[in-house]
Amino acid sequence: MARVSQEHLDARRRQILAGAARSFAANGFHGTSMQDVLKEVGLSAGAVYRYFAGKEDLIAAIADEAFGAVRRAFAEAADTVPPPMPDVLLGRVLRGVFEGQLHGLERRATAMLVVQVWSESMRDERLAKTLDDGYTGMRAAWGKLVEAYRAAGVMRSDVSGDDVARTMIATAQGFIAQEALFGGVGIEALENGLRGLMSMDPQKIS
Amino acid sequence: MARVSQEHLDARRRQILAGAARSFAANGFHGTSMQDVLKEVGLSAGAVYRYFAGKEDLIAAIADEAFGAVRRAFAEAADTVPPPMPDVLLGRVLRGVFEGQLHGLERRATAMLVVQVWSESMRDERLAKTLDDGYTGMRAAWGKLVEAYRAAGVMRSDVSGDDVARTMIATAQGFIAQEALFGGVGIEALENGLRGLMSMDPQKIS
Repeated sequence: MARVSQEHLDARRRQILAGAARSFAANGFHGTSMQDVLKEVGLSAGAVYRYFAGKEDLIAAIADEAFGAVRRAFAEAADTVPPPMPDVLLGRVLRGVFEGQLHGLERRATAMLVVQVWSESMRDERLAKTLDDGYTGMRAAWGKLVEAYRAAGVMRSDVSGDDVARTMIATAQGFIAQEALFGGVGIEALENGLRGLMSMDPQKIS
Repeated sequence: MARVSQEHLDARRRQILAGAARSFAANGFHGTSMQDVLKEVGLSAGAVYRYFAGKEDLIAAIADEAFGAVRRAFAEAADTVPPPMPDVLLGRVLRGVFEGQLHGLERRATAMLVVQVWSESMRDERLAKTLDDGYTGMRAAWGKLVEAYRAAGVMRSDVSGDDVARTMIATAQGFIAQEALFGGVGIEALENGLRGLMSMDPQKIS
């Protein structure tokens, strides 16, 4: 047998995941069989099963990759001085997710895949674990950012950093849900909406 | 045949929807058959099919009811002077949704049902239309509220009201997604997170 380089193995793995992502996005996770994935990828069953035991493995790997990309964006932001404000950062992260980071899928297909992963995780424990780990990592990264906001004097200090982290992540998740449901959601809407919210002063009427 | 009162018809309809909601929440929309719903409801096929032609009709009716409850909460808020701030209002709306408004389902079961409805709407045009109408109504209600904020001088006026509406709805959707995925999400986290965000001043470091 010919020796196979690590680069070749990685490229093959990415080729399989890209085909699987396209299949799931086009026909839904439940509407896609491993046969469909093989056809889309253009490889033999033997070549694909060498990397992934089944659909569940494929979707877990795709979710894991997506979290990795988002985590890197957060880590980069937390290291920037001064830290980018939430509207700027969330806009940047969502643009990254939507603009082809996920195997070149289009924006709405990406969003639909994310919502399907959420739904699927409710009956797939391994996928649930992947999501749990991914969100835990994101909350930690946001938590650090909130500390940076406080150090820069731009956020009140009597509110739990984890609560702010959860709320920011919720905003991004909700935008993904809206894009999945309706399409055509401009990321500027999120950026502007956050700016509007940040301009509010609860003291004035409370 | 005996005459049947409108009240009786309405009660029967609610009984069917409640049983269907419990079934979908317990086993997922795809994991539930009409037979399962009949068993849970405790009525004959004839009695149930008189109201609903199938699972798709049931889930659309459940979604429609949920939107109705949320719309009423928004309309009430927009009529209040001064208008409640976003943290107060969103907390109130989510408490309503989670605390048994949806056929007495528990919090996490409700959230899981919502995420399944999102996922299902991607292959069910009628359900997609129900969601589209529901969100359009919510955006309009929030739009009015943003006008009220401006009139009260608590929000800058150069940001699109619809963008703020979308962002607020996204935050609520994201919290529902987090509750569905992980459970145990306190609504205080959303309220605190929004307060933290509203306390930020982009001018200071931009």
